[in-house]
Amino acid sequence: MHIDILTLFPEMFSGVLNTSIMKKAQDLDAFSYETVNFRDYTESKHLKVDDTPYGGGAGMVLSPQPIFDAVDAIKDKQGKKPRVILMCPQGEPHSQAKAEELAEEDHLIFLCGHYEGYDERIREHVVTDEISIGDYVLTGGELGAMVVMDSVVRLLPGVLGNASSAPEDSFSNGLLEHPHYTRPRDFRGMQVPEVLFSGNHAKIDEWRHKQSLKRTYERRKDLIEQRSLTDQEKQWINEWQND
Amino acid sequence: MHIDILTLFPEMFSGVLNTSIMKKAQDLDAFSYETVNFRDYTESKHLKVDDTPYGGGAGMVLSPQPIFDAVDAIKDKQGKKPRVILMCPQGEPHSQAKAEELAEEDHLIFLCGHYEGYDERIREHVVTDEISIGDYVLTGGELGAMVVMDSVVRLLPGVLGNASSAPEDSFSNGLLEHPHYTRPRDFRGMQVPEVLFSGNHAKIDEWRHKQSLKRTYERRKDLIEQRSLTDQEKQWINEWQND
Repeated sequence: MHIDILTLFPEMFSGVLNTSIMKKAQDLDAFSYETVNFRDYTESKHLKVDDTPYGGGAGMVLSPQPIFDAVDAIKDKQGKKPRVILMCPQGEPHSQAKAEELAEEDHLIFLCGHYEGYDERIREHVVTDEISIGDYVLTGGELGAMVVMDSVVRLLPGVLGNASSAPEDSFSNGLLEHPHYTRPRDFRGMQVPEVLFSGNHAKIDEWRHKQSLKRTYERRKDLIEQRSLTDQEKQWINEWQND
Repeated sequence: MHIDILTLFPEMFSGVLNTSIMKKAQDLDAFSYETVNFRDYTESKHLKVDDTPYGGGAGMVLSPQPIFDAVDAIKDKQGKKPRVILMCPQGEPHSQAKAEELAEEDHLIFLCGHYEGYDERIREHVVTDEISIGDYVLTGGELGAMVVMDSVVRLLPGVLGNASSAPEDSFSNGLLEHPHYTRPRDFRGMQVPEVLFSGNHAKIDEWRHKQSLKRTYERRKDLIEQRSLTDQEKQWINEWQND
């Protein structure tokens, strides 16, 4: 997979993208990336990339020309049919399913604005996907692009070893993870639950399942509502409702 | 505000935190940060910070000792009562309200694990808040910490000018933003809507309001359901339902 990132702040990316799993993915040739400063494509003599909004109002709006031309140049160079992803609060909320979908692609282009709006013609004629990473206001699209990239690149074949992929099993079954404990058994008077030393794996699995359900029930009722509960799970939830 | 970040990957942060608004916030003394590699606090001879889980299973679990001691050392040094924020998928979903709440604090500490789990005693005895930035799997807590920091730091007094704060007005009223347009009026045959040249500000405002509602109605029915609609808004939605 190749990823191009259109941004006015290319210096934001290398610390994140050249560390840990993202670095490993590049070393494995699973993925490569390039940042493209779309200011390099402006036809404006003063190197402007934005302008005031038609119809009035505060804030600036990114002009169509530099972004249209930068995307065209990237498409010519790569010769693939990319997904062009706009990071913005108006986008589809990012999800694990979306990450899995994007992980099937050969070429992604991310457009990152930085507190400006985008001229609507960019959305209509250049962009294939609009994504929001959550309902909170960020300064720019750059962090969102890094978040989506991390969620996608780690899914590419060979990138994750078994050790690091295991912890998400419980997430992908629709429940929050159960508590984890490691050495020491007694840490400054704080104990590890006895059941984990029972050697009875069925009992340990049941304890973890119940803890996982309990945490989800207490923190994220929305996930419980989306789930078809087993009889055992319904019984546990009944217990907690009666407490 | 001072922020300490506990991480095994301190090199991930400077590109993001020393650019744009986050840089400006530091120049204004509105905020300072330090990364703390909690491996520096381990008592393990082999500099280990994690271990296998009690009760069996794949994956590693972060040990309590290095994190307890690193947080204690930071608290002693800063002498304030910090919020200690664990970035994890089990956390409360991040929101604009949470960012506003954290922006009132003097001192935040972020704990970033990196695909390992956390020993539960860290959650119970060190952490004050658990935050998730969204329902997707990331390699580590570092990107999440940067996202939360960006959403918080931009709210600190003096950090944002008027120009850059305006675009979020429509987000904070519970609707997605209306389309924006800027020069040129005709870009390669793609036109700007006529209404924006009418000079009639009431009409422009009405058009923007309707577009904003329409986009929200089409993309985020969940936001419409949370909203108390005006009579005008109900009428517009009726039109679209009948289409």
